[in-house]
This record gives sequence, C-alpha cells and structure tokens, in this order.
Amino acid sequence: MSEIAAIRPDHKYAEVADRIETLIEKKVFKVGDKLLSVRALSKEQGISLSTAFQAYYVLEAKGLIEARPQSGYYVKYSPEHMLDMPHVCEPLDDALPVSVDDMINSVYVDLNARNLLNFSMAAPSMELLPTAKLNKAVQHALRESKTSCLHYEHIQGNVELRKQIARQAFNWGGTPSEDDIVVTAGAVEALSLCIKAITKPGDAVAIESPTYFAIFQVMESHGLKVVEIPTDPVFGLDLDYLEQAIPRFDIKACLFVNNFNNPLGSCMPDERKKKLVDMLAKKDIPLIEDDIYGELYFGKTRPKTCKTFDKKGLVLHCASFSKSLAPGYRIGWTIPGKFKSQVIRLKRMHTVSTNTLAQAAVADFLSKGRFELHLRHLRKALHTQSLRYLQAVSEYFPEDTRVTRPQGGFTLWIEMNKKINAYKLHKRALKHNIGIAPGQIFSSQGRFENCFRISYGEPWSEKIEHGIKTLGNLVRDFRP
Amino acid sequence: MSEIAAIRPDHKYAEVADRIETLIEKKVFKVGDKLLSVRALSKEQGISLSTAFQAYYVLEAKGLIEARPQSGYYVKYSPEHMLDMPHVCEPLDDALPVSVDDMINSVYVDLNARNLLNFSMAAPSMELLPTAKLNKAVQHALRESKTSCLHYEHIQGNVELRKQIARQAFNWGGTPSEDDIVVTAGAVEALSLCIKAITKPGDAVAIESPTYFAIFQVMESHGLKVVEIPTDPVFGLDLDYLEQAIPRFDIKACLFVNNFNNPLGSCMPDERKKKLVDMLAKKDIPLIEDDIYGELYFGKTRPKTCKTFDKKGLVLHCASFSKSLAPGYRIGWTIPGKFKSQVIRLKRMHTVSTNTLAQAAVADFLSKGRFELHLRHLRKALHTQSLRYLQAVSEYFPEDTRVTRPQGGFTLWIEMNKKINAYKLHKRALKHNIGIAPGQIFSSQGRFENCFRISYGEPWSEKIEHGIKTLGNLVRDFRP
Repeated sequence: MSEIAAIRPDHKYAEVADRIETLIEKKVFKVGDKLLSVRALSKEQGISLSTAFQAYYVLEAKGLIEARPQSGYYVKYSPEHMLDMPHVCEPLDDALPVSVDDMINSVYVDLNARNLLNFSMAAPSMELLPTAKLNKAVQHALRESKTSCLHYEHIQGNVELRKQIARQAFNWGGTPSEDDIVVTAGAVEALSLCIKAITKPGDAVAIESPTYFAIFQVMESHGLKVVEIPTDPVFGLDLDYLEQAIPRFDIKACLFVNNFNNPLGSCMPDERKKKLVDMLAKKDIPLIEDDIYGELYFGKTRPKTCKTFDKKGLVLHCASFSKSLAPGYRIGWTIPGKFKSQVIRLKRMHTVSTNTLAQAAVADFLSKGRFELHLRHLRKALHTQSLRYLQAVSEYFPEDTRVTRPQGGFTLWIEMNKKINAYKLHKRALKHNIGIAPGQIFSSQGRFENCFRISYGEPWSEKIEHGIKTLGNLVRDFRP
Repeated sequence: MSEIAAIRPDHKYAEVADRIETLIEKKVFKVGDKLLSVRALSKEQGISLSTAFQAYYVLEAKGLIEARPQSGYYVKYSPEHMLDMPHVCEPLDDALPVSVDDMINSVYVDLNARNLLNFSMAAPSMELLPTAKLNKAVQHALRESKTSCLHYEHIQGNVELRKQIARQAFNWGGTPSEDDIVVTAGAVEALSLCIKAITKPGDAVAIESPTYFAIFQVMESHGLKVVEIPTDPVFGLDLDYLEQAIPRFDIKACLFVNNFNNPLGSCMPDERKKKLVDMLAKKDIPLIEDDIYGELYFGKTRPKTCKTFDKKGLVLHCASFSKSLAPGYRIGWTIPGKFKSQVIRLKRMHTVSTNTLAQAAVADFLSKGRFELHLRHLRKALHTQSLRYLQAVSEYFPEDTRVTRPQGGFTLWIEMNKKINAYKLHKRALKHNIGIAPGQIFSSQGRFENCFRISYGEPWSEKIEHGIKTLGNLVRDFRP
C-alpha cells in the first residue's frame, strides 16, 4: 500500500508504520486514541528512538495520526472515512515561458472586487495575529528611536531585527550572524532580488509543480524559463526527476518551497533536503528556498531548511513575517550565502531600504520573546482549522475527490474528477460569493485543471462550513 | 551677456532681465534691495504681467534675485561677489552601458562606516521633519484601522492616500484621480517599476548629465544603455541635443529630473517642459519624470511637471515623501499614464504591496492639511540654508571655483579647477571626517572629474562652516 515503503523499502520505520496503519484500518486504534510515546514504542519494538520517531512522522504525514504538543501522538482519522491524496503530476517535456498570467489576474481582480467568503488567500486571519502586542511594539519603537523612525534604515536592515532573525534561525539548525541577513519588503522582494542575483534572462529555473503562482510570475518578469518538477503531496519534489532534468534542460537555478509547499502543504523530509543540497552543490547550482511557512508546522519540531545543510553558500534562504505575524508590515529577509553583495546592491537599486518603523517594531516584539509564544498559539489554531476544513471536505465532496493532508501552512489542495474544470468552478463559486484559487494558476502552463486550493486561514465557523458545503454541491452537480 | 538672451533673443522678458542685471552689476540695486512688484514692473515697462514675471524668473534662476513669500523680489547677490556657474558638459559619442558602480559603492560604503560631517546625502535633516505630528498620525492610523494596519494593503495603495496625492497634484496643474496612482516603496521603486514597464534589455534611455547615480544604477540593473544629455545648471537639459540624439542613438525612453535636478538644482522652465512633452509625444517615446524635489521650490510657485502637459499618457510621473516628509516610511508613488496596468502587475510581482501603517499615517497627516504647512517651513529653511552654504563656498573656495544657484532641492554642485580630481578630494576629505559626493559618480562614464556635490540639508552651524572651510582649504592646497 504505502508509497513510503515503495520509496525506502529497506527501512525499519516504514515497516513499523505499516503495521500501525493496519491497526488503525482495523479500528484497533480508533480516532482520538493516544498512541505509545516515541520512547515507549522504541522500547516495545526494539527499535531506535529515531526509527520510532520516523514511523510516527510517516503516519503523521499521511494524516493518520497527529502530534499534540506536550501530549503525544493521537489517531486522527480512520482511512475509510478519508478521501485519497491527490496524484503527483506528470512531468512536462519542455522548459517553457510562463503563460497563465491573464487567468491569475482575472481570479484576483474578481476577488478584490467583492466582499466574499474568500478561501483563496493563503494568509492568517487577522483574529490570529497579536494585534495589541504589536501596537505596543510600534509605540516602543517610536519612543526608542531618536528620529521617531523617520530616518532611512541601513540597506541591509535594522541590526537588532537581523540579530533576532539570526537567533530564530537556531530553530532550524541555522547559524547565520546578523551580517549574513538582508531585510526586504516581504519575502516576494527577497525572492525577486535573489532570482535577479543568480540568473540572466533566458535561463531555465526549476520549480515545484504545483507551485504558488507568484513564483512563476516573478520568473516571467525576469525573462526566465521554468522547468516544473513533479511534487509529491507528502514528500515534496521528485529528486530523481530533478537530477535528470538538470542536464536535460540546462537548469541554472532552483526555487523551491520545501517546507509546506503552497498549495500542497507537503514537507520534504530533512534527510531529503540534505540530499537535494548535496546534489546541487556537486553541480554548483544555486538554490533559492522560500521558507515563509517554515514556522507554521503541525508536527513536533520545526522542520530544517536547505540552508541548514548548505556548506558552499549556494542556498539563498528567503522568508518573511507576512504569514506568521504582520502581513501589512511588509518585512521579509534573505540569507543569500555567497550572493550577499549582489543582493545588497540590487536592494539599493530597487527599494533602497525597508520601512524603518516596521523593522524596529518587529525587532522589539521578537526581542521580548513574544514571537515564540505567538507562534505556539498560531500553529495550534492552524492545525485545528486544517483538520476541521479537511473533515468538512471529506463530508461534503464526492467520493472521487482527493485532498491533501497539510503538514503545516495554510492550504488544502483538492483534486476533483478529471471532467471538472476548476476555473469554471471558480466562476460558478463566485456567483455564490465564494472565492477559490483554481488549479490552473499553480502551473506556468495551466495544468491542474481539475484541482483547486482553499485556505484554512480563517477560524472555523458556520459560514465556512456552509461555504464548503456549497462548494461540495457545486462539484457534485458539475455539468461542463 | 546672458545665456538666456542667447537662447531666446526675440523675447522681451530677456531684454528686461538684462537691463535689471546691469543695474545690479552697477550697484544701482544693492544686495537686499526690494525690487518692484511684478505688477508695478509691468506697468512701468509697458509689458505684460507674464513678461514681467518671466524677467524675474530668469534673474531668480541665475541667483541674482530671490522671491520671498508674501513679500516680493529682493536682490540677492551682486555678481562680482559670486563664483561663476559650472559649465555644461560636452555630449558623448555613444550610448553606453554603465561603468562607475565600484566607485559609487566605495563612496557609500566609506560613508556608512564613519560618523562624519556628511555633505553627501541629499536628504533633509531630521530636525526639519514634523516628528511629533507624524507620530500622532501613526497613532491615529492604528486606532482607526480595524486590523491595526496588519492587513495587506491594496496593491495600488491606500485609497485615502491616493486621494490626497491626487489633491496635491493640483499644485502642479495635475488632474489625476486616485485610480491613476500606484503607491510604491519610495520613488526608487516607482522608477524601477516604470523603467521595467517601458523598456527591454539593451534599449537606450536618455538621462540628464550630470544625474543622480541611483538613476543609472537602476538602468544598469535592467540591462539598459544610457545616453547622457548635456544639462544646463539653470534651464535643465538641452532639448535641441535631445532631439538629434533620439534618432541617432535610437532612444526608446527618457528619465529626467526636471524640477531641481540632482545634483544641479536646475529647474526646466515650464514652457520648455511643454516643448519636451510635445516633442516626445510626436515620436511616441515615453518619459519617466522623477519629481521627488518638485515641492521643494525656492521661487514663488510650484513648478509644473511634464505630466501637466501630457495628453497621450506617455509621461510616467514618479515622486515620494522621502525628501519632504518621512524618508524611513518608504512611501512613493507613480502616475504611470497608459502604462498603469503593467506597473501594477510589476508591483505585485516585486513587493506585492507597500507598508500599510506608513501609508495610513501619511494619508492622515495629509488629510489634516498638515503637509502644506510643513512644506512652507521646509522650503524656507532649505532656501536659507542654500544661501548660507553658497555664501560660505564663495568665501572659502578659490576664485576659479564655479558653483550652482539651486532653485530648489538639497544640493550644490561645485566645479573646481580642471586639475583637481574630485574622487581624490573625497578620499582626502574623509581623513578630515567630511563626506562629499565626487562628480564621477554622477555620470555613467565617470565624467565630472573636477566636480562634486554637497547637500545643504543640515541647518547651518559652526561645524558646517568649519567643514566647508576645510574643504576649501583642501581644494586650494590640492596637489595631484
């Protein structure tokens, strides 16, 4: 049965995971049951702690069990209640320029124009953000600054903020100093500057498929071609395919969202990240990693990043506070490795420096230790929301629907019957005042016609349940 | 004697201006004397009001007289006390890629590294900014926003801010609506997005010479070639030369700072702006105008902009609050005419949206009518400072020095004896803890070797007088 076993048949953990899965299927372990602790499992099965942990990791990734912080692992769903996972896409035969821009514009113009139940924004609900404490941080930043933050900030960014970002990097095994970090106007500016720093027009860049449309839009704006790498809803991108694609398409750079790929919510296991970094290092190919969702994990620990394994300075790590703290502040950053001086130069040419007050406020918030506390609440809320949304999709959508089990982040990826066109579904949903992001805009070539993405950033409510039910009915009754 | 007469020998105003200049030379009118009002001059000389005004405009532009708000025109300096104006540069024979990047980096790296008397930043002193009122605007913006400004702002920008910017445009004869405006992260982002919207790599773009180095750095980053158009310290760029250069170099776009060119402080007279816009309209060539200094005029009225005369939507007007209100807020904008949709698309691809809180705070400040009041104070302060600095340069520099009479903005442009290398002077000045901007960085080809720029953004003080004296001595004692 298990894809995981197929990939690593020689691993003990897959065998243990398989056995537990069978017990869940047979209802020996029921929904809500607490499982053995990792330590107890290790003892009982005579396996190492790390093997026990990996077995649970696999089951968690498949959405069968869940880790509850400070508590342990619990059975989440019995498989027969759950929809299947979406398919991995077939690779394409060419490196291609981007072509779905018009569709993206039409989706987001439509959405801005109405006041609707918006499942199409992969961002946290304002209710989940620490508004009052951030306002205090703004006051504090104004008081502490001799110029009330009216001066131009250093091109590289507020030094205290960079120190805090460096400290935060400890969680994923990073060891940057403040001098390695460049603050940007959100992660999108970080990505744009990094791409510009390492490519020239006409180059081919590898991206995941599906991937967030802003990623190939920024590619397009730099005159690049993209090679879409098939990406698994659990394990992330297909490394074997990537390895073959590099010489075949003369790939000059990569841009991946390994932690909670948007839209899939997949998380590349850390040992595969290491393998990816090592493979690219051998070929001297730079890798931009977009880690904006990295802190929003539902598992036990912060997943590592590719930067964690970067020895040659070839990884350009990009992230922001937009998904975790303050979207409107527009504060992101990059740790661009050996491309630092190029990135700083481009930053000066394109926006000079980032908003002084917002940087000082975030620095103040972080330095008081408030970010960790807030993240703990946010992760828990998002995890709960992901489960409620997932349950509702399972309940209200036809049986042939497939849906991801996100391991972090904001989004569910829903694969419908092949006959259903998601862009048409989006148009119909809009008439019911519901916004979704059709699958076509997650591929540079308009693939994923029968898929769409919804965000579970909004806390669960009757209105949302009603919206998902309506979507389910639209899918059920779909006539082309 | 007058250059102006040479340019428009047939104009009555030049003849009147000439006669007044002679009277100033002969000390009939002495420094500090009040001149006739425009109305009285018109009556006395039997000329139209507009001719009388133009005569004073010419004299003002030459630094011979000054307009004092609500008072009238006064004799400023007698020519024999004053250093000459700098020369206009010779045109170059080629459209060329940019080559002085290393020098720019070295100048600004050096400056960031020390705590020095910094004449090299063309920005207002913090003392001149309305700190307390802006802080109140921040508080108000936080209170009024349902999300405490944590939400993503509209890609095009805060709608109230855009309304206020549209209202402000009335002063230069603009009639944009809020829908014509795109808010950006400072004017530099506006310029970068506009250049990207209207050019492709390899295109030739016309710029002034000398011009602010960030302008050709941004050209370089977009893979463009630049054609430097000789620019007069009073009247701005040479329109005849531009007209010939367009077919010769296959110029695809222009980027000019017509109001108070940085470094010259020149202001293209409004009728010449109209001529420029008409000429480019005939050839269908887009013009980016960087109007960041437009509000900082020392004369009687706000100079018009090229956008004022734009009928075909070919002018992309760019400006910001960085030079007039709040550098660290990073709020600029563009009115990109018929290129609006491309600019919005690029904005979304590169920084998504601009800081929400800073936009709301500036909107609040403007909507309370505080900007006009602040600008009146700021203009007066800068005008006074410009005169004090100018006087000190005249006093402490050798007689063969030439210096501009800025009509607005922040900078004096000083031309030294041809034997003196400004980059070397900059290195020597640094040893005395004085920062200047050497002329070489104001040309893509390292021209203006014997020129440098100083900013008079800092209020006059003994320390500054001492600094200018030290610079004068360094110039006087210069040995290559």
